[in-house]
Amino acid sequence: MTDLELMRELTLESDAKIVMLVMDGLGGMPLQPGGPTELEFARTPNLDRLASESMLGLSIPIGNGITPGSGPGHMALFGYDPVKYLIGRGVLEALGIGFALTPDDLAARGNFCTVDENLRITDRRAGRIPTEKCVELVRKLRGIRLPGVEIFVEPVQDYRFALVFRGPGLSARLNETDPQKIGAPPLPVAAQSADAKPSADLANHWIAAAREVLKAERPANMVTLRGWAKEPGLPQFNEVYKLKALALAVYPMYKGLATLVGMNVLQGLHHLDDQLAALEANWKAYDFFFVHYKYTDSRGEDGNFEAKAAEIEKVDTVIPRILDLKPDVFIVTGDHSTPAAWKAHSWHPVPTLLHAPSGGRGNPVQGFGESECLKGALGQFPAVDLMPMALAYAGRMAKFGA
Amino acid sequence: MTDLELMRELTLESDAKIVMLVMDGLGGMPLQPGGPTELEFARTPNLDRLASESMLGLSIPIGNGITPGSGPGHMALFGYDPVKYLIGRGVLEALGIGFALTPDDLAARGNFCTVDENLRITDRRAGRIPTEKCVELVRKLRGIRLPGVEIFVEPVQDYRFALVFRGPGLSARLNETDPQKIGAPPLPVAAQSADAKPSADLANHWIAAAREVLKAERPANMVTLRGWAKEPGLPQFNEVYKLKALALAVYPMYKGLATLVGMNVLQGLHHLDDQLAALEANWKAYDFFFVHYKYTDSRGEDGNFEAKAAEIEKVDTVIPRILDLKPDVFIVTGDHSTPAAWKAHSWHPVPTLLHAPSGGRGNPVQGFGESECLKGALGQFPAVDLMPMALAYAGRMAKFGA
Repeated sequence: MTDLELMRELTLESDAKIVMLVMDGLGGMPLQPGGPTELEFARTPNLDRLASESMLGLSIPIGNGITPGSGPGHMALFGYDPVKYLIGRGVLEALGIGFALTPDDLAARGNFCTVDENLRITDRRAGRIPTEKCVELVRKLRGIRLPGVEIFVEPVQDYRFALVFRGPGLSARLNETDPQKIGAPPLPVAAQSADAKPSADLANHWIAAAREVLKAERPANMVTLRGWAKEPGLPQFNEVYKLKALALAVYPMYKGLATLVGMNVLQGLHHLDDQLAALEANWKAYDFFFVHYKYTDSRGEDGNFEAKAAEIEKVDTVIPRILDLKPDVFIVTGDHSTPAAWKAHSWHPVPTLLHAPSGGRGNPVQGFGESECLKGALGQFPAVDLMPMALAYAGRMAKFGA
Repeated sequence: MTDLELMRELTLESDAKIVMLVMDGLGGMPLQPGGPTELEFARTPNLDRLASESMLGLSIPIGNGITPGSGPGHMALFGYDPVKYLIGRGVLEALGIGFALTPDDLAARGNFCTVDENLRITDRRAGRIPTEKCVELVRKLRGIRLPGVEIFVEPVQDYRFALVFRGPGLSARLNETDPQKIGAPPLPVAAQSADAKPSADLANHWIAAAREVLKAERPANMVTLRGWAKEPGLPQFNEVYKLKALALAVYPMYKGLATLVGMNVLQGLHHLDDQLAALEANWKAYDFFFVHYKYTDSRGEDGNFEAKAAEIEKVDTVIPRILDLKPDVFIVTGDHSTPAAWKAHSWHPVPTLLHAPSGGRGNPVQGFGESECLKGALGQFPAVDLMPMALAYAGRMAKFGA
């Protein structure tokens, strides 16, 4: 596993172009022992042909046994050690609704909850109020003003909202207020270090004001806050990799993650066709393209094996359009596995294909799937190694040491 | 990946003998997809038979995508984390010409360059003067004397020379003088820390004197210095591994690298036959033998696929002589890949064979080559793990923990 400081030293300027196509939750599982996975079940003539001219392997997102969330899964694909560069929950919540964070922002995830007359929590999710109610309450909370900061409150879904304080010198070294049990009152925000004291005071003032605003509401008459986080200030793609990178994603979360690492993000994409058209239109202007497809993960989470396979087949149809652009390196992978059989993310290694016309060692394969990837030339490898390999095959890496 | 402190604790004294045969740049690439690599193309009946009684794998020198120079490639084979134990360019340059460095030495790589009357560089390589001219100029530079240090100037090749200051308390925390562009004057040597100030002064005095010596020369009328480095003071083989180690190499660079880790180095070897004779003659006196063969890399760098295969075939012929000595562990590997198709070092994993009559898990194989190694019992593994495995199979490692 190579660190970003080493990459910063070794990467070279070049015209070579890299496409990384991420099918979210691509890795799967057979429904019966010995059966095909979703990817193996899907009819993917284009990917299968490509696999026979590519290097295959299985990427390990975080570590064996560690199931990644969307944040760490993508950090690894982008070459950032996901344990070192952990993105806080507050930041992910803000990214997920397309909120553009600045370095001055302190973000938290908020939950509406229900408290009794003694301020003891009786329901940590306020009866899972519908999103419309959430929107209505958030509108009321936006009336709260505090000196020295701008405050943003944004609805997320059901009982969840995002809170952002914007101002100089804010600190995320703050404790959560959710006591994680029924019958206890929300905790005050405690500072974990002396310099976080003003931020803790600010948060506590906001919570007190929110309680006043919500006092008469039922069932959502209080809030808890957790996942305090600041925009992480990650090393940027153009600096560590010398890449001009463009993200072509539909969902806000993935656009947000791409923004954190310094990619340009194209807005207004709604379908895979939009993404492909944008890839073609911007081919000359960038040298790294992150193309994200969400629905493989969604159908995996649904537990719908055939529907997930059908999503993979949709992606298969656009492979020739990408190859027509003649990328120097073309990677097809996922950020983690989402086996329909599990209805959830899993830690299993992710089928990965690296196509590089510059050459490489292949292996005769029977198409693109987990079993064939297991025999592939790339072996089972840490997902963070994918960027160094892509850059190496693109001729964008200098030799290490004399 | 095991660190050397752990190895120091675990290694045991023993009579078991280990041979590590390194074919430089052994790893290759097919000329056409699906074709054989150099190693697979070569007729190697002895290595193939040995492979069927050995464990195979692919060693990753530094990390996926990271192409090693000779220094890091060998550090990894010797079990030293090559990113942690980075050997400076000045030291490698000195080692490459067989200069015996001491702990008091500060080494730099020197380039002759051309400057105009305002001392602005017009040619960073002085028109690539021939080596004979380099020798002549170096002879003149040897006239420079400075108080408190011994000074060595040695020609390398073309416009390159090695400079070594020998004296107490010298520091390598010095900036390079090459401005890396035309039209700028050489930079003065700047100290990167207060204790490096005397060394910077020394270097600047030497440069001023060198300019005086060279002033009337054309085109090589000035020098630049870079890669300041001290003998790295590496942990020694006899201490960390409890091995009495002998290096049998032809090229100065590899003898130098072996010296850095505390191997004894036999001088005066010119051919593979000399190396084998020396191996046989010294069998009783040592318990680790590093045998280095350079020409596989040279022919790979030339881009000559068949000539590289022919060099592998030459090495194959001496395998029976090594086996006749009945080593307890016999490793055949490379320090990195040098595919003829790339005419350069590459990052690709290196075919590796570990033969240990004490046992181990094998795998039916079709000979020694990249594809068979991909299926081997050792898998794809970091090259720094090779020494721990060798020592373990030699019965030279204690159990870790109770």
